[in-house]
Amino acid sequence: MILPSDMSTLQTLLQILRTHAGDWISGEDLSHELGVTRSAVWKHVSRLRRDGYAITSAPRKGYRLTQTTPLLLPEEIQSGLRTRHFGNRKIVYLETTDSTNTRARELANRGIPEGTLVVAEEQTAGRGRKGRVWHSPEKGGIYLSLILRPKISPLEAPKITLLAGIAAAESILSLADIDVHIKWPNDILIGKRKVAGVLTEIASDLDEVSHVVTGLGINANVREFPAELQDVATSLALEIGRPVDRAALVRAFLERYEHYYTIFLQGRTNTILERWKALSRTLGSRIAVEISGKRITGMARDIERDGSLILETPDGKTHRVFSGDLETV
Amino acid sequence: MILPSDMSTLQTLLQILRTHAGDWISGEDLSHELGVTRSAVWKHVSRLRRDGYAITSAPRKGYRLTQTTPLLLPEEIQSGLRTRHFGNRKIVYLETTDSTNTRARELANRGIPEGTLVVAEEQTAGRGRKGRVWHSPEKGGIYLSLILRPKISPLEAPKITLLAGIAAAESILSLADIDVHIKWPNDILIGKRKVAGVLTEIASDLDEVSHVVTGLGINANVREFPAELQDVATSLALEIGRPVDRAALVRAFLERYEHYYTIFLQGRTNTILERWKALSRTLGSRIAVEISGKRITGMARDIERDGSLILETPDGKTHRVFSGDLETV
Repeated sequence: MILPSDMSTLQTLLQILRTHAGDWISGEDLSHELGVTRSAVWKHVSRLRRDGYAITSAPRKGYRLTQTTPLLLPEEIQSGLRTRHFGNRKIVYLETTDSTNTRARELANRGIPEGTLVVAEEQTAGRGRKGRVWHSPEKGGIYLSLILRPKISPLEAPKITLLAGIAAAESILSLADIDVHIKWPNDILIGKRKVAGVLTEIASDLDEVSHVVTGLGINANVREFPAELQDVATSLALEIGRPVDRAALVRAFLERYEHYYTIFLQGRTNTILERWKALSRTLGSRIAVEISGKRITGMARDIERDGSLILETPDGKTHRVFSGDLETV
Repeated sequence: MILPSDMSTLQTLLQILRTHAGDWISGEDLSHELGVTRSAVWKHVSRLRRDGYAITSAPRKGYRLTQTTPLLLPEEIQSGLRTRHFGNRKIVYLETTDSTNTRARELANRGIPEGTLVVAEEQTAGRGRKGRVWHSPEKGGIYLSLILRPKISPLEAPKITLLAGIAAAESILSLADIDVHIKWPNDILIGKRKVAGVLTEIASDLDEVSHVVTGLGINANVREFPAELQDVATSLALEIGRPVDRAALVRAFLERYEHYYTIFLQGRTNTILERWKALSRTLGSRIAVEISGKRITGMARDIERDGSLILETPDGKTHRVFSGDLETV
């Protein structure tokens, strides 16, 4: 299901039902306010019901919204979204897809503008870094990809992962005061377990990036993990003890991401690095990482302006790590 | 027109006609050798004629190939091609397209294997670096794009432009002893005029490249340039004084490119850098380049292992240039 952008009648209807939430509003009033016939009102209500909204109707009383949809629909995300572009233009909503990043890359190759968001309820081939699987069950996860078109050199692209990591961590913190932190380069952890991950993919020539796709997977209301993931993965619902409002979480992510992206485009890299360091526990800890097939152990000392990690080995030498899997040792 | 890969009868027919070039071969002999009816032979001959091959036919004599096609058809490129993969698998042939790189990127996104070649007789939106136009008239140019899938970090991708530049320069030298040289990063010049250009585009996450598309445009038999290009562009036909065999040039490029690509994958970067330096006149010359919006003048001193250019300014400082337009001053 791809929702068209000219959803104004449906969205206005939803808006009215929301402001009257709990109260009845007559079909005649709705017909007046929307400027459509009463049978058109009925059709739109039916559509909202199919989308998972619980709407009661009764003769002489009209309609009443009793429960919002459990789906992560565009109108849910956009309701109250305070961004200029991110998620505020086109949102492509998919009940299921192979990978939102793959879909977003296809759209980006066709010239779709910056800020376009792809959201899916389920991924059948969700991806992490290095082609790894990202467990993406249809119940309760958040799987989204955002298209960016920064006018930057491909050498600056690694910073985008830092931005997205900050935004993801902060959006989780906006829901609950919880032990969230970033593990370089792209994992969001609660304690020692992964709760979210960022996958940055770029298309570029050697001078300039043509687009960046930021994929974000959040184990929001996921309740169960396969046996092999139980020790390394967790979800917000499991950690907080109640389901979270996925639409609110996506809004918070989009707002924060746009904020830091603007700072990034202004060249204020230090602001970003400081915020990243405050949210990360990687620096100052003893880690092991593979560099060119060799396992190296040392202290994580700093993050460079280009997003690389500075590792100091016991012999006092420093190594620049551009990518890899850190292990705390 | 996309030629299917099961062209064996047509290709065998062409092969036989070629070995008999100038001599007659009877329809009956062809029918025997190909294992098809004489009317099928006639159909295939008609197809070859439509593709631009001049084939004479006469009662009781049979068929005779008098002139090969002026088109850069897959069977022309593959006839005698000595590569393992490059151009030896699928060739997508297009009479006209917007940009072979755009087509190749689409194919690559769909998982098409390494070595797949896209060739067009004309580009309506041929691209150079930074979205610039590459003049791509339908008469006599070579416009091709090759899909590569090296398992490398995106940080190594700039080297691919060096490889392609070497292969392009050497393929031109294989046709004629001519004053060809490379101008960093991606131009092939004869004297001071551009005769070919390389456009490298990558799709990547931050750990690993998913594909590289190498686009190559060669002003092979182009005879006329728009007024604004006459001082900066030239063609092989204009420089050598006769039309060149475009299929032979493409074969030479593919063979050399595959050769240096293999060396690159083996990690023998020094071999590549040495060859690049021998073919370039950039090093040791006084150049100007824009770095972060600032024009800097100095001596081009060296090429780093990552493909970047080392520029020494009069104050003795060295600058690393990752991309840009050099101007000899």
